[in-house]
Amino acid sequence: MGIRAAVAGASGYAGGELLRLLAGHPEFDLVVATAHSQAGQRLDAVHPHLTGLDVTFGETRPEVLAEADLVFLALPHGESAAIAAQLPAGVRIVDLGADHRLADADAWARYYGGRHAGTWTYGLPELPGQRERIAAADRVANTGCYAATITLALAPLIAAGVAQPDDVVVVAASGTSGAGRGAKAHLLASEVMGDLSPYKVGAHQHVPEIKQATGATGLSFTPVLAPMPRGILATVTALPTGAADPRAVLAQAYADAPFVHLLPEGRWPHTAATLGGNSCHLQAGVDVDSGRLIVVAALDNLGKGAAGQAVQNANLMFGLPETTGLSVWGTAP
Amino acid sequence: MGIRAAVAGASGYAGGELLRLLAGHPEFDLVVATAHSQAGQRLDAVHPHLTGLDVTFGETRPEVLAEADLVFLALPHGESAAIAAQLPAGVRIVDLGADHRLADADAWARYYGGRHAGTWTYGLPELPGQRERIAAADRVANTGCYAATITLALAPLIAAGVAQPDDVVVVAASGTSGAGRGAKAHLLASEVMGDLSPYKVGAHQHVPEIKQATGATGLSFTPVLAPMPRGILATVTALPTGAADPRAVLAQAYADAPFVHLLPEGRWPHTAATLGGNSCHLQAGVDVDSGRLIVVAALDNLGKGAAGQAVQNANLMFGLPETTGLSVWGTAP
Amino acid sequence: MGIRAAVAGASGYAGGELLRLLAGHPEFDLVVATAHSQAGQRLDAVHPHLTGLDVTFGETRPEVLAEADLVFLALPHGESAAIAAQLPAGVRIVDLGADHRLADADAWARYYGGRHAGTWTYGLPELPGQRERIAAADRVANTGCYAATITLALAPLIAAGVAQPDDVVVVAASGTSGAGRGAKAHLLASEVMGDLSPYKVGAHQHVPEIKQATGATGLSFTPVLAPMPRGILATVTALPTGAADPRAVLAQAYADAPFVHLLPEGRWPHTAATLGGNSCHLQAGVDVDSGRLIVVAALDNLGKGAAGQAVQNANLMFGLPETTGLSVWGTAP
Amino acid sequence: MGIRAAVAGASGYAGGELLRLLAGHPEFDLVVATAHSQAGQRLDAVHPHLTGLDVTFGETRPEVLAEADLVFLALPHGESAAIAAQLPAGVRIVDLGADHRLADADAWARYYGGRHAGTWTYGLPELPGQRERIAAADRVANTGCYAATITLALAPLIAAGVAQPDDVVVVAASGTSGAGRGAKAHLLASEVMGDLSPYKVGAHQHVPEIKQATGATGLSFTPVLAPMPRGILATVTALPTGAADPRAVLAQAYADAPFVHLLPEGRWPHTAATLGGNSCHLQAGVDVDSGRLIVVAALDNLGKGAAGQAVQNANLMFGLPETTGLSVWGTAP
Repeated sequence: MGIRAAVAGASGYAGGELLRLLAGHPEFDLVVATAHSQAGQRLDAVHPHLTGLDVTFGETRPEVLAEADLVFLALPHGESAAIAAQLPAGVRIVDLGADHRLADADAWARYYGGRHAGTWTYGLPELPGQRERIAAADRVANTGCYAATITLALAPLIAAGVAQPDDVVVVAASGTSGAGRGAKAHLLASEVMGDLSPYKVGAHQHVPEIKQATGATGLSFTPVLAPMPRGILATVTALPTGAADPRAVLAQAYADAPFVHLLPEGRWPHTAATLGGNSCHLQAGVDVDSGRLIVVAALDNLGKGAAGQAVQNANLMFGLPETTGLSVWGTAP
Repeated sequence: MGIRAAVAGASGYAGGELLRLLAGHPEFDLVVATAHSQAGQRLDAVHPHLTGLDVTFGETRPEVLAEADLVFLALPHGESAAIAAQLPAGVRIVDLGADHRLADADAWARYYGGRHAGTWTYGLPELPGQRERIAAADRVANTGCYAATITLALAPLIAAGVAQPDDVVVVAASGTSGAGRGAKAHLLASEVMGDLSPYKVGAHQHVPEIKQATGATGLSFTPVLAPMPRGILATVTALPTGAADPRAVLAQAYADAPFVHLLPEGRWPHTAATLGGNSCHLQAGVDVDSGRLIVVAALDNLGKGAAGQAVQNANLMFGLPETTGLSVWGTAP
Repeated sequence: MGIRAAVAGASGYAGGELLRLLAGHPEFDLVVATAHSQAGQRLDAVHPHLTGLDVTFGETRPEVLAEADLVFLALPHGESAAIAAQLPAGVRIVDLGADHRLADADAWARYYGGRHAGTWTYGLPELPGQRERIAAADRVANTGCYAATITLALAPLIAAGVAQPDDVVVVAASGTSGAGRGAKAHLLASEVMGDLSPYKVGAHQHVPEIKQATGATGLSFTPVLAPMPRGILATVTALPTGAADPRAVLAQAYADAPFVHLLPEGRWPHTAATLGGNSCHLQAGVDVDSGRLIVVAALDNLGKGAAGQAVQNANLMFGLPETTGLSVWGTAP
Repeated sequence: MGIRAAVAGASGYAGGELLRLLAGHPEFDLVVATAHSQAGQRLDAVHPHLTGLDVTFGETRPEVLAEADLVFLALPHGESAAIAAQLPAGVRIVDLGADHRLADADAWARYYGGRHAGTWTYGLPELPGQRERIAAADRVANTGCYAATITLALAPLIAAGVAQPDDVVVVAASGTSGAGRGAKAHLLASEVMGDLSPYKVGAHQHVPEIKQATGATGLSFTPVLAPMPRGILATVTALPTGAADPRAVLAQAYADAPFVHLLPEGRWPHTAATLGGNSCHLQAGVDVDSGRLIVVAALDNLGKGAAGQAVQNANLMFGLPETTGLSVWGTAP
């Protein structure tokens, strides 16, 4: 038997994607999947696309999860900390929730409310030096899906002094799985199909994480719900410093990153090309009229934005090649 | 018989929407509909949703159109000018193409190529004083669909000195009908469903029109193709001057505009609510982190963005109430 | 003031479509709109596409509705009867629910449970003699959306002896608005987009109504949920008797029906062409291999399948032309 | 190096899916991918979801393909035969086109026109004895996507005498990728989204293949285009003989089939659950009103309906486990 893996919160969309990835992973063996209201249900009743996997959901309790070597927490924001605190030190944990991402406890209190649970190693391997930190960590805070997208587009440009950090404008649209599986009226298919709708305009709880990870000091972030199940497209603009060519900076930053692809000049990322895989597609240019830098990033919010990223982090934590069990390619059309 | 109306380019999507609106218009009577490759076809074979209208497409020639009192030109960009020049002076024309929108001949040459055909009265009645200019005009250049959306969101704020004109950032997504009915591989349903894709990033031909109509002097405009048949959602951000409350400015600007609705505070526009109608929904706020003004506008690109706007302009040109034959309400879900 | 109209259950999808149609109706004036959990809400908060209508939802109580001349009941199945029984005799009622459709009390008990509320005039004006019966009625039971579609396709063929009634096979797919506005997990956009899913296979509660209205004696009916907001496409097959040409029979049956269109030979109905209008499109043919009759019908489940049909019935009940306030044309694309 | 594989017609949707599957296959190595008008293009320009694969399309000529041990032909119907005839006898071929599927040359002439190219081993491993025949074959004719779906649902029931073969009625809806990647106006996203449209009603060219593979003697088959990129849902009804329980027959027929899943009672197949995988989901029941058998099957038209099936056949032809490089699970939501 390989490395024993558990998924807490396995009935949601990120949890389901983790189960799918683990089912095809050569080293991680799913030993426990837990859920809240769906505990006791067969996996294939909750995730019909995984028909053929013989698993029944357990309850999300520490003693159930503790039998694993590796625990993925795919719980609602604010619920990871209590569970994590009760798991043995030897169990490695990747938390897909927001609880342990922020370094700034005040920002947590302001945007999420309540007491900050502490800061874990930030789970974006493509940041400089981060691959090594993740490999050495027992506790990793997976990125948020918007933060992953925007950070991959912007962080190297700010770090290299190519983009000014103080007037960054981002409009990013996400497929509906990013909003979770809760039965809410505004997420009904009748409401969403044929519709684009902005939400949490002017004050989104992911802003502190995005600023922390990108180095932006001034950020206008407008998220939009788009009529598709998966995918994030982020359009990131910033004022240039003129220091260097943004494409050259991105090319160098991701030269050794198997999942981040700077597209050939003239081709812009689009979300469908990343569906089901762990890749992020990038392109950068300069607006001829305004002179602003424009960087566009696309990825699968459940892949590189959540479950795929989590498996990538776990691979590093166990000394495996980071691509193990993950696909570079999307499923299209 | 009422006012005799003709539609040139009636086989496309904007043309089809014009036919639908004219079929329900109490004063304009369709006497001629023309097409290019579809000339000779029955209307309901080309537009099955208009089954029950007994019309056969004629050829797009000046002498065919000249029997009308009112001609709508829904032709590809660059083809209106030649036809318009051959129509009698007494015929009133609304051109849905770009040919006569720009005041600046150089901008035309730079973005469209070729010789500029001249400037007509700009067909956006909600601009200050424009309703009267349109009423007095025989030739009106209908707005582009992106320009209409962005101008309704931004022009009053720049005019009132509330928004700075020099660093405007716009990301706007459009449904596929905005890309026309030509059979192109990248517009196939298989490619578009589940996909968001930016296009013409950094250099879109509508930039000069948007700057001219909004008063913006620096504009970063990124258009995105969205997986829905209709609708435009524009997210417009600009640096504030602090001079006044943006919502108050918008409320005053559109106090008498039957088709422009500033939503109650806290509700943001979304595209599906405008489908099939002639309304534009607006909301404005200030980003708590960056302090930028954010204005979001939604409308139906074939309605207020094209055919509905054209009928509204024609109503004014013939002294009719501007709402004649148009719906304020969308069709949802 | 015209005829005073009330809508009970105005917060749902059929209720919202009724409000939209009444807003454009020249004779019916909306005086009351009621809701259950949304009572007290402004209409445009619940139906953003109707922004501009100044209405607040009342509670669904008989004394609130009794001030109207005409009451539309758009309530969940089983809730109409109690309300209707408490309305004055002089108030004309169109019930969009199932409560009063069936002639057979046993069928009601078997498929819906509980006691049957009684049988009202069946609200499908295109059935022989039905237009007159509706015009004379104070109480009309609007058809179900599947029943309307299938009946328009099949009833004339069985009545004319062209189709055998005893081995009818129907597969019909509906857009999601047919499933209502309740927040249910299987109706989430994430689940529905990209998906076709059959439901209630082998035992749907609409079977008795369809048999009653079509004359079929043996019926296999399989409904499918389709990834679109509106529209029903019914594929109806039956064994032929060889008595006459099915197209000729349909053409004659609907010669005077303004909303039912037998398409020219070779063109088959599709749902998008009927969106937002009150039309039903039909085509019939014979399968070359099996010899079975195939009739396909398309309509908008909220239009001719619900709210449009209800307004058509109300028009007849008040002696108005049946097309008053209704569109023959769909909104496309 | 492993087994050298070539894909002819790699620029289309089935070809693209083959490339994706081969990229993850541990034994087959892509050595050549050819195209027609796209020859000379880089693979990732044509299939952006495969960005990261370094391949340039060659021309579809026999000498280019002959260097492979295994050739997949994903060419338009009617074009495989000429190419196949020029490939060396030692090269194993899986033809995804229709050219070599039919045993009856007259049926070919009637539905496709022209001279029949001959009959190859039929590539549906789940038919009795077929796994062995495919393993022994050098030339395999992959099933059509509709035929695969319907045959998996129906063939065991006819073979076991549970379903009568003479009055089978099928309505099957397909996602748009089944219609190919050619730029046709009726396949534009603007036309397809929100729409269900039947096509080739009463005389589809796949009828002979379906009858041959299922054993049906009388078949009414109506295909419908659905607004989703992938997936086929087939609703198959037949008169029962009463000989045995249909679920028991299906359970036994597929007891050893890794890709065909009879769902637990009460759960019906839906297409999204099969996206990107090679599985077919099945359920069967009896209509309470008509007594007809109803069998519903769902699969991915590009997976088990085309490219996945082709790889499964190729695995068998080379003595590999039939699941090599294929996923049982779908990607959802």
